[in-house]
Amino acid sequence: MKIHFLNIGPHLVRMHFVCLPQPRNLPPMLGFNSSDGSLSVDLPMALRVFSVDYHHVQAPFEIVLWIMLASLAKLGFHWSGRVPAVVPESCLLIMVGLLVGGVIYGVRHSAPPTLSADAFFLFLLPPIVLDAGYFLPGRLFFENLGTILWYAVLGTLWNVLGIGLSLYGVCLLAQSSLGDVSLLHCLLFGSLIAAVDPVAVLSVFQEMHVNEQLHILVFGESLLNDAVTVVLYKLFESFLRLPSVSGVDVLLGGCRVVVVGLGGLFVGLFFGLVAALTSRFTSRAQVIAPLFVFLYSYLSYLTSEMLHLSGIMAIVTCAVTMKQYVEANVSERSKTSIQYFLKMWSSVSETLIFIFLGVSTIQDVHMWSWPFVCSTLLLCLVWRATGVLLLTAVVNKLRRNAVTFRDQFIIAYGGLRGAICFSLVFLIDDFPKKRLFITTTIVVILFTVFVQGMTIKPLVELLDVKRKKRALPTVSEEIHSRLIDHLLAGIEDVVGYWGQHYWKDKFEQFNRKYLRRFLIREDHQARSSILRVYQELERREQRGDEEAPRV
Amino acid sequence: MKIHFLNIGPHLVRMHFVCLPQPRNLPPMLGFNSSDGSLSVDLPMALRVFSVDYHHVQAPFEIVLWIMLASLAKLGFHWSGRVPAVVPESCLLIMVGLLVGGVIYGVRHSAPPTLSADAFFLFLLPPIVLDAGYFLPGRLFFENLGTILWYAVLGTLWNVLGIGLSLYGVCLLAQSSLGDVSLLHCLLFGSLIAAVDPVAVLSVFQEMHVNEQLHILVFGESLLNDAVTVVLYKLFESFLRLPSVSGVDVLLGGCRVVVVGLGGLFVGLFFGLVAALTSRFTSRAQVIAPLFVFLYSYLSYLTSEMLHLSGIMAIVTCAVTMKQYVEANVSERSKTSIQYFLKMWSSVSETLIFIFLGVSTIQDVHMWSWPFVCSTLLLCLVWRATGVLLLTAVVNKLRRNAVTFRDQFIIAYGGLRGAICFSLVFLIDDFPKKRLFITTTIVVILFTVFVQGMTIKPLVELLDVKRKKRALPTVSEEIHSRLIDHLLAGIEDVVGYWGQHYWKDKFEQFNRKYLRRFLIREDHQARSSILRVYQELERREQRGDEEAPRV
Repeated sequence: MKIHFLNIGPHLVRMHFVCLPQPRNLPPMLGFNSSDGSLSVDLPMALRVFSVDYHHVQAPFEIVLWIMLASLAKLGFHWSGRVPAVVPESCLLIMVGLLVGGVIYGVRHSAPPTLSADAFFLFLLPPIVLDAGYFLPGRLFFENLGTILWYAVLGTLWNVLGIGLSLYGVCLLAQSSLGDVSLLHCLLFGSLIAAVDPVAVLSVFQEMHVNEQLHILVFGESLLNDAVTVVLYKLFESFLRLPSVSGVDVLLGGCRVVVVGLGGLFVGLFFGLVAALTSRFTSRAQVIAPLFVFLYSYLSYLTSEMLHLSGIMAIVTCAVTMKQYVEANVSERSKTSIQYFLKMWSSVSETLIFIFLGVSTIQDVHMWSWPFVCSTLLLCLVWRATGVLLLTAVVNKLRRNAVTFRDQFIIAYGGLRGAICFSLVFLIDDFPKKRLFITTTIVVILFTVFVQGMTIKPLVELLDVKRKKRALPTVSEEIHSRLIDHLLAGIEDVVGYWGQHYWKDKFEQFNRKYLRRFLIREDHQARSSILRVYQELERREQRGDEEAPRV
Repeated sequence: MKIHFLNIGPHLVRMHFVCLPQPRNLPPMLGFNSSDGSLSVDLPMALRVFSVDYHHVQAPFEIVLWIMLASLAKLGFHWSGRVPAVVPESCLLIMVGLLVGGVIYGVRHSAPPTLSADAFFLFLLPPIVLDAGYFLPGRLFFENLGTILWYAVLGTLWNVLGIGLSLYGVCLLAQSSLGDVSLLHCLLFGSLIAAVDPVAVLSVFQEMHVNEQLHILVFGESLLNDAVTVVLYKLFESFLRLPSVSGVDVLLGGCRVVVVGLGGLFVGLFFGLVAALTSRFTSRAQVIAPLFVFLYSYLSYLTSEMLHLSGIMAIVTCAVTMKQYVEANVSERSKTSIQYFLKMWSSVSETLIFIFLGVSTIQDVHMWSWPFVCSTLLLCLVWRATGVLLLTAVVNKLRRNAVTFRDQFIIAYGGLRGAICFSLVFLIDDFPKKRLFITTTIVVILFTVFVQGMTIKPLVELLDVKRKKRALPTVSEEIHSRLIDHLLAGIEDVVGYWGQHYWKDKFEQFNRKYLRRFLIREDHQARSSILRVYQELERREQRGDEEAPRV
């Protein structure tokens, strides 16, 4: 017996089957066609046993599937055990992305979906930067802030201008094929290709356990240089849209870099303090306490982006500002949840970014030029190396503990590029060589992540770079370091030299007298600071190796 | 000196000011108009110190602001301390919503945004149901499953048909104004207005601490009856689109109710087992372990919705299935994070739903009819009360511990309506009386939440309904209850009566022999079950009052 289904309307389906001879006593809803002996019955479609409405759930369904793919990929690598010891996770994820992209391309015969710049900047980047800011080792960071800013601001300028100008030279030399690339385009490209990516740097350096100072220098630079590169990028972009660029424009542009950076800082500070204040009142609604950490920091990021300020600066400042007060206000379980959730979120974002980097590499829009691609690769390496050498030579004269040559090498070599360049290059207004820029950016990213990312670990071992001390500080160490801090502040005060320790001490006093009193719950304030340290250390010991959520 | 700004292009602004007499040595970018002595300079807009691009961040910004409003409102109520003791939180939140809606209406002179049915069913409902399923007291639920299903399936049918048919009677009586409402429309409306809302029920009952059995009966019914009401709703909706409805359609509809429920169950079971299996391998990537709980359960929900099965059934089953295995597999900190996050998410969703209920009440689409609104209110109460009385009379003959009359009263009175009705009524295809349906639904929701929700607590005290025992079970209690379980299973086996205890024991054996071995990490399996109970109790004791995250 053959059965056919016919859709005869939006909600009706006709079931059609041949049935000979004509059955007797047919119910009225069955129609019998005596010419071919077929019997038909109309069923409403909604009553079919099985029906699919993919469109209804498409958006969340696809997002969940991508996240699932990312999580399962991550799980697989960690489970396999041996592979991640040699190849960094970022490389493996890009390879998964390439594979998935290839499969999609093969099936659909068109380019797979790329990571949109909006999705990246609004949804994937903030969790990573928030996580980085929240777990920033405060003391270490502020002690090295001068050096970090030195690298992040001057180093980035050096790289952007160096790469931009020399690429323009290359374009002039290869006049026949690259003649239509203007100086401004080269500078624009330089600004995006100079952006060292905190995500890529973190994912590689986290697995290496180099000494804390080197880690904070590399990571702090990668975090803050984004503010500079993104601003420079936007500046050159607006220059490109101007009919002509004058000296005043350049001056205003310089001011803008400062405004963007400081603006982000203040937005972050504001939201951080409000978040701290809010957390003071969460004692009776503990369940939503962690939420405020995420909400306020995301709000600081969005507000900054809305005002064209640096969202990265804002969210990092917000996290750094709120952390000590929030952690003093909320319960131990809330604290665990906040930390866990930050790690989880950033880890998923990071995984997604690398997978999408791979997927988006499979494109129809590629354009190749040997001189441009190769010289970009070379220039990135050369300018970064010379920049680090020169800047360190200056900064070493001012630092007590100098940055060693080995450390300098790792700083220069650890300048990995990642999703930030990638997202920025897609944002460029269309012009004839945009495809070339995209291709070159992808090559530079893949080169730095694969070649530099995979060789840096053996190099660290080869150069015998100082590693991280594993042990946590003991109570006695903590007490002594505090004593020395106070002593140094006193000495600076007596000598009349208002240096780092003097200001740190002043801030501590201000913090104790006003901020802590205002931002922390009354019943949590009474504890003296040394008691707090002791409790914290005891808690860590209790938790043992579970101390920090492991990735 | 007057300064004017003129936008003269997408990225240029002309600054215009009068300056007399003509200054000498003007830079070339400044233009001097000698006729009126005005001086103008063109500045690129990007270089203005302050510029706003709201559109870019609008979607996430507004979502974050709504969540922020919800969280701050919740925080405020909990902080104030005294108000929530009298008025349930849901009422306060609806009032905040009304206020916000009123302000928006006053400012914009148009209706504020309503909660779209998609946003509700795809994003706000799943976290609440997931939370409910995950924290479902398993033993209690399965012991009362028969009664719960009895109420949820038969009770809902009773309510839907009763309300629908008698409303049709009312429409026939008030022929002049309600003559155009058909029987099917009445049944459709009956199916949505009969939907007892788990969110509203939970938020009221959580604050009351009635005895566990009463709680699980009310809450279990509200959870499972949604599957029935939603299916009935869709059924009547598809009947409305048919030219005529025959007996076979009704029969097929009945089958569909079963398919939808069981289908959801199996989808949930499948994803639950896969989630449990996945969690077995998360030991080396602990940070993303909690993620799988959320991903798989959401996936089960979306898959069910896609296949037109019951998403609520699926997500509850998924949560119940995975819970014991996942909690055995992941670390203590992951477990805390999962629990905390479920609570946080569901709490925010719930808050948002109530606020939006308030906001959406401020509408231009209202239509009023005294006979329809009042009779609906009355019929809802009457049919629910008679339903509970009748069904309990039958079920009490089969239960060992009967449902007392006081409990019956609370079950009937606790049938609060909420956002599910609200979302469903907006989904009805347009017809002349749709506005009346919307208004009536809102009135019923507000009546049940405000009047019933606020009086139920005093009533519970007045009737002296049995309260919850506060103490956690001791080890000796646990051991004895296990012993009795085994004994009863043995007795049932000997007697040859295969009842509840027999099947429970069989499942436990199967679980121990196959499921646990397959789904739980090797190093976590060895522990005997009594040891696990002991550890769990010890852990609870350690945590003291922090045992469960408090709302």
